[in-house]
Amino acid sequence: MLNAALDELADSGYAALSVEGVAQRAGVHPATIRRRWRTVEGIMRDALTHKGATEILIPDTGSLQQDLRLLAQAIGSFYTASRNHAFLAGVVSAASLDPSAGDALRDTIAERLRLASAVVHHAVERGELPPDTDAEETIAAMSAPFYYRMLISRRPLDPELPRISADAAYHAARAGAFSLARNDHK
Amino acid sequence: MLNAALDELADSGYAALSVEGVAQRAGVHPATIRRRWRTVEGIMRDALTHKGATEILIPDTGSLQQDLRLLAQAIGSFYTASRNHAFLAGVVSAASLDPSAGDALRDTIAERLRLASAVVHHAVERGELPPDTDAEETIAAMSAPFYYRMLISRRPLDPELPRISADAAYHAARAGAFSLARNDHK
Repeated sequence: MLNAALDELADSGYAALSVEGVAQRAGVHPATIRRRWRTVEGIMRDALTHKGATEILIPDTGSLQQDLRLLAQAIGSFYTASRNHAFLAGVVSAASLDPSAGDALRDTIAERLRLASAVVHHAVERGELPPDTDAEETIAAMSAPFYYRMLISRRPLDPELPRISADAAYHAARAGAFSLARNDHK
Repeated sequence: MLNAALDELADSGYAALSVEGVAQRAGVHPATIRRRWRTVEGIMRDALTHKGATEILIPDTGSLQQDLRLLAQAIGSFYTASRNHAFLAGVVSAASLDPSAGDALRDTIAERLRLASAVVHHAVERGELPPDTDAEETIAAMSAPFYYRMLISRRPLDPELPRISADAAYHAARAGAFSLARNDHK
């Protein structure tokens, strides 16, 4: 039924997503959907938790710049698929409309940031970065331009964005922009 | 009536926003609201266009790092107000639900990026940045972490974020991460 919801979302968009539409696509009675999820937002919340469990490959090439580029390419490839773009729009809307969907999104992203921050920890161990680098802030900075492009400036993702956002985070981290205990408050 | 909509949004959140609620707060009949805007998304679209027209002060301190910090502080201060945070959530939801709201958001942001990119052009003229720096990409990189924090990782904005995001964009730009014509495709 979650797959039916994601197919319906990809084909019709979030505005047209309804418990009835998902039921029809899944070939079940709307009451069956309603027993499991009261609302469209509830469907999005569980779809997110389900997708969030998908295994993420964390690169470990020995080079932070390369690791960040691979992570960024994975984000770019994922959202270039229009069904995943639609899924994101649905999840973010659901998060604004239903606190439990908002909590699910927050938890999913926290776990992904925690996993991906391994590439920053490895870079610190290799001496590539200042020891007090905030790993999750570094990964957030690499990721943020994709979401800004999709949700805020609303322009297409282009093939250059992964390299731009990875290299920007890399150079910023090298320069100490994500250091936790900077005394440079000027 | 737009102010009534924004007050209602700030007090009740986007999930509870309705044509009826806005009408009650504005002291008019719901039909009056419906004549002007068919939907809640239509209200958000016009509120965005209205707010988008607010004058933005573009700093020109003679230092790119300082200019970016001032722009970032303005973003941080704006969204620290919970009514503006709620407004953003409403606008982004409306943009997913109604293409005309999506277009209004895209146009508003395009105009703001165009205006703010003056600080990058000035830095290029001063020789602070490579001449082929993509000015709007630089401003987008400085702005993106705020929206990522509010909409995706869903953690509070903290007072450090403006400095972190401004300095990250600054160092990335200095290192050429936003250069348009990089031959470094390794």
